[in-house]
Amino acid sequence: MSGSKLAVVGAGSVGTSLAYAALIRGSASNIALFDVNAAKADAEVLDLAHGTQFAAAAASMTGGGDIAVTEGADVVVITAGAKQAPGQTRLDLAGTNVRILEELMPQLLKHSPDAVYVLVTNPCDVLTVAAQKISGLPAGRIFSSGTVLDTSRLRWLLARRAGVAVPSVHASIVGEHGDTEFPVWSTATIGPIPVRDWTVEGERVFTPEYLAETAREVTQAAYKVIAGKGATNYAIGLSGARIVEALLRDDKAVLPVSTVLDGQHGISGVALSLPSVVGRGGVHTVLEMPMDDGELAALQHSADTLRHTLGTLGI
Amino acid sequence: MSGSKLAVVGAGSVGTSLAYAALIRGSASNIALFDVNAAKADAEVLDLAHGTQFAAAAASMTGGGDIAVTEGADVVVITAGAKQAPGQTRLDLAGTNVRILEELMPQLLKHSPDAVYVLVTNPCDVLTVAAQKISGLPAGRIFSSGTVLDTSRLRWLLARRAGVAVPSVHASIVGEHGDTEFPVWSTATIGPIPVRDWTVEGERVFTPEYLAETAREVTQAAYKVIAGKGATNYAIGLSGARIVEALLRDDKAVLPVSTVLDGQHGISGVALSLPSVVGRGGVHTVLEMPMDDGELAALQHSADTLRHTLGTLGI
Amino acid sequence: MSGSKLAVVGAGSVGTSLAYAALIRGSASNIALFDVNAAKADAEVLDLAHGTQFAAAAASMTGGGDIAVTEGADVVVITAGAKQAPGQTRLDLAGTNVRILEELMPQLLKHSPDAVYVLVTNPCDVLTVAAQKISGLPAGRIFSSGTVLDTSRLRWLLARRAGVAVPSVHASIVGEHGDTEFPVWSTATIGPIPVRDWTVEGERVFTPEYLAETAREVTQAAYKVIAGKGATNYAIGLSGARIVEALLRDDKAVLPVSTVLDGQHGISGVALSLPSVVGRGGVHTVLEMPMDDGELAALQHSADTLRHTLGTLGI
Amino acid sequence: MSGSKLAVVGAGSVGTSLAYAALIRGSASNIALFDVNAAKADAEVLDLAHGTQFAAAAASMTGGGDIAVTEGADVVVITAGAKQAPGQTRLDLAGTNVRILEELMPQLLKHSPDAVYVLVTNPCDVLTVAAQKISGLPAGRIFSSGTVLDTSRLRWLLARRAGVAVPSVHASIVGEHGDTEFPVWSTATIGPIPVRDWTVEGERVFTPEYLAETAREVTQAAYKVIAGKGATNYAIGLSGARIVEALLRDDKAVLPVSTVLDGQHGISGVALSLPSVVGRGGVHTVLEMPMDDGELAALQHSADTLRHTLGTLGI
Repeated sequence: MSGSKLAVVGAGSVGTSLAYAALIRGSASNIALFDVNAAKADAEVLDLAHGTQFAAAAASMTGGGDIAVTEGADVVVITAGAKQAPGQTRLDLAGTNVRILEELMPQLLKHSPDAVYVLVTNPCDVLTVAAQKISGLPAGRIFSSGTVLDTSRLRWLLARRAGVAVPSVHASIVGEHGDTEFPVWSTATIGPIPVRDWTVEGERVFTPEYLAETAREVTQAAYKVIAGKGATNYAIGLSGARIVEALLRDDKAVLPVSTVLDGQHGISGVALSLPSVVGRGGVHTVLEMPMDDGELAALQHSADTLRHTLGTLGI
Repeated sequence: MSGSKLAVVGAGSVGTSLAYAALIRGSASNIALFDVNAAKADAEVLDLAHGTQFAAAAASMTGGGDIAVTEGADVVVITAGAKQAPGQTRLDLAGTNVRILEELMPQLLKHSPDAVYVLVTNPCDVLTVAAQKISGLPAGRIFSSGTVLDTSRLRWLLARRAGVAVPSVHASIVGEHGDTEFPVWSTATIGPIPVRDWTVEGERVFTPEYLAETAREVTQAAYKVIAGKGATNYAIGLSGARIVEALLRDDKAVLPVSTVLDGQHGISGVALSLPSVVGRGGVHTVLEMPMDDGELAALQHSADTLRHTLGTLGI
Repeated sequence: MSGSKLAVVGAGSVGTSLAYAALIRGSASNIALFDVNAAKADAEVLDLAHGTQFAAAAASMTGGGDIAVTEGADVVVITAGAKQAPGQTRLDLAGTNVRILEELMPQLLKHSPDAVYVLVTNPCDVLTVAAQKISGLPAGRIFSSGTVLDTSRLRWLLARRAGVAVPSVHASIVGEHGDTEFPVWSTATIGPIPVRDWTVEGERVFTPEYLAETAREVTQAAYKVIAGKGATNYAIGLSGARIVEALLRDDKAVLPVSTVLDGQHGISGVALSLPSVVGRGGVHTVLEMPMDDGELAALQHSADTLRHTLGTLGI
Repeated sequence: MSGSKLAVVGAGSVGTSLAYAALIRGSASNIALFDVNAAKADAEVLDLAHGTQFAAAAASMTGGGDIAVTEGADVVVITAGAKQAPGQTRLDLAGTNVRILEELMPQLLKHSPDAVYVLVTNPCDVLTVAAQKISGLPAGRIFSSGTVLDTSRLRWLLARRAGVAVPSVHASIVGEHGDTEFPVWSTATIGPIPVRDWTVEGERVFTPEYLAETAREVTQAAYKVIAGKGATNYAIGLSGARIVEALLRDDKAVLPVSTVLDGQHGISGVALSLPSVVGRGGVHTVLEMPMDDGELAALQHSADTLRHTLGTLGI
């Protein structure tokens, strides 16, 4: 009968959007927002708490500049870190944010030794490997939001063109949450229809060219949003809240989060996104989905790219 | 900015469960319950309205024994009719319920000429053909809940065994809502994994025997529930509310409702369930999903069975 | 991060409506339905579980004919018992249902020693005293739904007449959940306006006569519903689900539940409904609301009536 | 069965937070975000739309830099304008924002002649009078969010201290949305208990000093949040989404919005917040709530202050 506690680390636009979404949806019964900038954290907590009358019945908002506000969390979402600047790749951010994690993780673990940790900070795949090593936690308990957001972008684009509801689109972006990510078209369906066979007014609209352009649009989406508003925060906030719900409600939902792999598709020691069962306690299983040869090659390319970055960073 | 109106015809256990679910979920802004038994209708409306304080903010409950309470509905759900007795097949009910529709439909159409009509009364496939003929409405505007419920039963069984969330199971029951219905295993997946390849602790659990037993369990589920409690009402109520939401919110959701076919898989003039896009105005498209030869044969068998019944009834 | 468990005792129309509402709303993460009639319980559980696809993401449905299905519940709602027949007063049922509780409570306590117990079976005030004595639990941990439903009925009637939303009506029925219950008009408001001063098109519509008739309508509502449909189940089901949520989410909501009093308004040893703070662990506080002399006299009359019944039953 | 359209004018932090809240809650079936800065608007729309998979089933997100995106809105919420800088009073912003409205309103009216207009831009009371004059709309169709947010802040503070749920606190801030606003303590209750009589562990905690400090805390809340994060956006976003729902769902909720008064408490021609019935088509009634002499004087002071500002601005 005890409640559930979500700790959000980082009171920037991502962390606060995630807390806002979680508060509105009632993703957790207590949401604690922490930031080393105490004045910022306090102001954001107040602004969020002031809306409590109109939020989910159960949710309460706390937080501040002392890391002790995260005490006893069931899920810790880490959004802290330097953010992606216009023109910068996600991997360029890595060094700085690894160092932040080296300082942060031990303190967070002291306050929430039994929590599941979800990394949202970029480059999230690289940071997942670093955070897993720093923490020594089992891979399933420390993972990142990966391509959950990219997959949402993909489904939105396909649903709009097909004229169906987003939940009726079954397609995923996998691999690195970054430039080498790709959609697995070979198994993608709309309802039970292979995406390549879907027709609109009698015509197969998802031609190879159309799909290639859609894939490009997804990969470039973050750059486009950043160019226009300086950051992405709302969709990643909602994606994060969704992952938190899967953990706290024990949904066992299949979501493309990024976990340190252990032999899936022959890949180990690198974190990248594959459809995974997410429920109480973290990632239950990372699934090996069917892929065609081109997709398998793209996955290995994604893994190689990440492995190279990890090597460069000495992780 | 105008609200939406749902009329539920029949204040039996199915109609009232559907109204209750719709009231709780806020499926429509006004829910009107009609039954020729005015005393029963009035009492049910009162019992439902008394819970308004705890229901969805927007929903109001009205109704009674005068068919004029359905006036101006956007969606009319028909649950009225003789109900399936223990041991009776769904098709046995047909004659009686067709006659009820012959009397009811013209009156309903007078009050709600622009509504979408959803039949829940059994045998729903046969009644859909009858109602479409009686009303002269386009096929997409008069359809039945079909195998939406059976599909929910299937997904629940598979999800439980696989250890995943129900929405991560992509499998459908198609054909007659009755003894000849069947699951389309050839394209069924859990997340992106073909159901036949899904493993639990390293073992492929969905063997041909297991799947056959699961199919049997779904087909027999209604009989089992009826044997224990005399009727089914709750799950069909929720299924109906879900269909209503797809219509009123223009979801364009893919749902296996039963519409009079027009050449899909070579079948015409018979109503049976296939995955269909459901949104504003009714069924937008009945999809032709990929099936293997056995499944195609089973679909034709389902169509033949229904065609035979229609012939017997002279519809 | 652990889930919450609701056990519903009794698979009659009230228990199953309550389970249905709780499943749709996600009031608890596990809902277990128990009934001594195992065939009935199994069928109801199946019928409810079959709708899981369309219910709240988090909720799972279990249950059956073995009381062990209630094991480890956080909240136990008791709906079992003989039900109110047309023409019968709530108090007439008492003897039979007390004996059922004497058998049931010790078994339930064995399986869920830390649960909060909510009685919905009638006459609920009398049974609350009996159950509290049988169980030896603190008063706050074993209470009944009391006049939560009657208050919902009152607010619906007032809201409809005033042309405002139900949550904007602040008025309560207190006392016995039965013939001596009454609304506390002296503090009743619509928004911040005393109900007696509320005007519709310039006219004070809530005249003494109108209010008296409204009070009568609420008190007679159950009889009216029972006359038309043989029982009340939907509104009481929703009311029960709402109380469960207040407990499991630690809402600290003010609800007129019925608890064994300990000196409130000078009354002790009798259970009747007064506005009470309901949150984790049960009733936190039974409030002494302001009443005028007539209302205080009515409350004493309600207490006297219940005291007389308790005496007659030897409780 | 047609959907509802919300147009949000201004893609700053308030407008986008409001759109985000509305998207998550499904406050409208289409949400269109407009900003003269097209690049900003496009990026915000994309960022919001990318989360659609996890938002309310019904809501779609559109928008951009062309005011035609607002076409056919049922509700238009205006958040555009210069924003309150640290240290600046709300009234200082007035001149600039009136001029923006003079340009904006005629264009908005051309695209949405039948919409209800809700002003969120500050100083909202002054702008409401200006916008009403510019548009010539009836007072009930063009109003501002007023003290809905301030009231939410007040209830959160009281609920926390009292140990009850926020919806169980019945207290309102009225008057100017600014420095002269005040809580109406004389009728404030927690459940049915006057706030001044509420006890925590036997002690009356809401002493005159405590209440005065609470009132001050509410009035200063915006300054405090602005000092820490440069703006307020989340709570006002949620408050705005709530008002939109009351309009689109025809809630008839009692909310303290700010409308041009017409004789209430003897005040005319000035807009300030009083509890008002909000439903389809706008404000149905502005209520005259009971106040004591001090409160009535404070209300007149608030009206005088606003009247003075209007005079200074020549409105």
